[in-house]
Amino acid sequence: MTAELISVGTELLLGNIVNTNASYLSVQCAKLGFSLYHQVTVGDNEERLSEAIKTAMSRADIIILTGGLGPTSDDITKETLAKVLGRDLLMDEQSREMILSYYRRIYSDINTNLPEGLNKITENNWKQALKIRDSIVIYNDNGTAPGYIVEDKGKVFVLLSGPPSEMIPMFENGMIPYLKKYQDRVFLSRMVKICGIGESKVETMIMDLINTQSNPTIAPYAKNGEVHLRITASAASYDEAYKLSEPVIKELESRFGINIYTTSENITLEQAVVDLLRSHGLTLSTAESCTGGLLSGRIVNVPGASDVFMEGFVTYSNNAKIKYLNVKPETLDKFGAVSEQTAREMAEGCARISGCDVSVSVTGIAGPTGGTPEKPVGLVYFGCHAGDKTFVSRRQFKGNREKVREQSVIAALDLVRRSVLKAYNL
Amino acid sequence: MTAELISVGTELLLGNIVNTNASYLSVQCAKLGFSLYHQVTVGDNEERLSEAIKTAMSRADIIILTGGLGPTSDDITKETLAKVLGRDLLMDEQSREMILSYYRRIYSDINTNLPEGLNKITENNWKQALKIRDSIVIYNDNGTAPGYIVEDKGKVFVLLSGPPSEMIPMFENGMIPYLKKYQDRVFLSRMVKICGIGESKVETMIMDLINTQSNPTIAPYAKNGEVHLRITASAASYDEAYKLSEPVIKELESRFGINIYTTSENITLEQAVVDLLRSHGLTLSTAESCTGGLLSGRIVNVPGASDVFMEGFVTYSNNAKIKYLNVKPETLDKFGAVSEQTAREMAEGCARISGCDVSVSVTGIAGPTGGTPEKPVGLVYFGCHAGDKTFVSRRQFKGNREKVREQSVIAALDLVRRSVLKAYNL
Repeated sequence: MTAELISVGTELLLGNIVNTNASYLSVQCAKLGFSLYHQVTVGDNEERLSEAIKTAMSRADIIILTGGLGPTSDDITKETLAKVLGRDLLMDEQSREMILSYYRRIYSDINTNLPEGLNKITENNWKQALKIRDSIVIYNDNGTAPGYIVEDKGKVFVLLSGPPSEMIPMFENGMIPYLKKYQDRVFLSRMVKICGIGESKVETMIMDLINTQSNPTIAPYAKNGEVHLRITASAASYDEAYKLSEPVIKELESRFGINIYTTSENITLEQAVVDLLRSHGLTLSTAESCTGGLLSGRIVNVPGASDVFMEGFVTYSNNAKIKYLNVKPETLDKFGAVSEQTAREMAEGCARISGCDVSVSVTGIAGPTGGTPEKPVGLVYFGCHAGDKTFVSRRQFKGNREKVREQSVIAALDLVRRSVLKAYNL
Repeated sequence: MTAELISVGTELLLGNIVNTNASYLSVQCAKLGFSLYHQVTVGDNEERLSEAIKTAMSRADIIILTGGLGPTSDDITKETLAKVLGRDLLMDEQSREMILSYYRRIYSDINTNLPEGLNKITENNWKQALKIRDSIVIYNDNGTAPGYIVEDKGKVFVLLSGPPSEMIPMFENGMIPYLKKYQDRVFLSRMVKICGIGESKVETMIMDLINTQSNPTIAPYAKNGEVHLRITASAASYDEAYKLSEPVIKELESRFGINIYTTSENITLEQAVVDLLRSHGLTLSTAESCTGGLLSGRIVNVPGASDVFMEGFVTYSNNAKIKYLNVKPETLDKFGAVSEQTAREMAEGCARISGCDVSVSVTGIAGPTGGTPEKPVGLVYFGCHAGDKTFVSRRQFKGNREKVREQSVIAALDLVRRSVLKAYNL
């Protein structure tokens, strides 16, 4: 089967947003075994959208449209497709109900902040409850505009909302189960996630496998301080594909050992850390300077993080480091806030005050200012107190303020993982 | 003038990389005053690329192609365009020299890491020194493949390398100066950023302006709890465009008042909050439960945030709320951790302990578990102590754990802004 993506939105043509939907949906098409030869972006313009739909119908079997399903008069994707197919639109009662309850909930909360007369559902919202005749409605749990599947003229049309936070769950819950019937081969994709080794080293360590393997294939992706290896096997059945992938996974495990934090696609580093701590009944606290709360924020993104994560300190000022973590003023004077000694005292102070089993600290220079020749921007120290030991690590990152922080969060999580494994002999 | 983008690369169709080039070049086209109606992505396939070029020639004046200029046999963009135009390729001596010196430089640095025999320039590299007859070569300071400008059949073709680190400087240094001769108007784009009112409300409030304005145009974009209005004016000169935009900005300011947090394109909400606090010499501390540090993490992303942000508490457990923020155990027992009362005590406790002028608290249910009929997932309370007042707000968000948190961070920042303006009569 051949698929084509049509992204609809003038904001894409103006460059106001980056089209991450296209890459996400391209990956999904590959997984479903659909060949994708064209991605097309057009604005919210009926003539050009209609032309794009007709062109796609001339060369693809499955046509996936994103964007233009919202309440405003700009949003014309559904209306344009209906015209091309010569179908009418009719009210879908369940959609209407869902929009109503969505707004009831929203307005009951914020109406005190709204100017007079604004807490009514505006008329344009109801257009989102219209469906193309004989289409399947895929309800939206994360917004008001539903998605649709339409089969017509030997083609399958998939209509998705534009915002990725709505589009992705809609596609995964509503569209993939439907599209699977058009899948003629099983593509099994597995992931080996590595932290603590750079991309080019990882690649060198598996160059022989990459060059000799064709099924499964192995593809490395660098991801801000991590390297992910995607192993893709294709076969007539899931079991057969799984059997093909098994020896490759085993080989990678033997080559990378402790540097692999998971072989599950959906497990993030923070999830792996939370799982490790939970499975050994350990609690965690954090003490952050340059990451300013991003580390704890990342940890609590894991559902159920409250089982292990108790509390965190954002000690951005020196005073806060002294006041809450009992870092010695002499240590700050002598070695500076960005030093192995301060990182160690932050982790140990945090452990003492929080009473947690494991405490991790981060202190560094995120930039753009604050660097010196001895302590340049990107220098970050980490401490982790686990059991009765404290582990300290020093890293020098490249990139801007945000990138230094992002890499620091990854490095801190990785230090927790390695420290716990060592301190408790796991 | 009309422009069209053609992105070439099978890696884009497989979703291995996100097409950030398309958004960058779209912004550049808008700045140059070119109307962009289509972005197209095709793989490294001669037939489909050639078809895409012909289609673009039928509907655009300026055709910008990215990718497929490299050394491998996959890279066929230049060759395909030459065929479509019926021109031949010939060796460009300066390109040849530059490739040679590029590799000399690289190899002198990395040859110690290279396996035997690899420190030679492979034959395929020389294909990058071929230019389309009568084209302008734009040399690449950051890689080996040069870019090209070709004028033929009344069309302008711009060929750029794929990697953004090569493409962007090439476009800015080599292409923009050339393309400026086709710019007949100045486009001025300004931004009004609104927080605290939903997208469809905002649109309703300016529907009359949207419908009657054609220069400048007004376009709303929803962005996770914010709505941005882009005002675009075109005129023969910058001053004239600015004058055209002024009354619209004034009108929007009078309609949205305090809900506008900035009229500067590059100012984020967190930057606006930091600027507001700094300009009045106020300090800030945070007390977070469900956002788990994301709020403070967002604030410290602002360069120079250390002027105003002192410290933060991530009091994820009830115990931590009592221990650090002096929330009363009775309050937690009687009203629960997710309540107006707890949010208030968290903000007031945080202010007392930190000694900061302004303290903001967040406590809510991010999900997926922990919700009840009375307190569903997505319910979040905020407190802000500023001056001698405490402001509390209650919001009900939709979406998954991450989305609830994201919206909570925005709402907390907005509450700080509104509370400071009220408490200090600004």
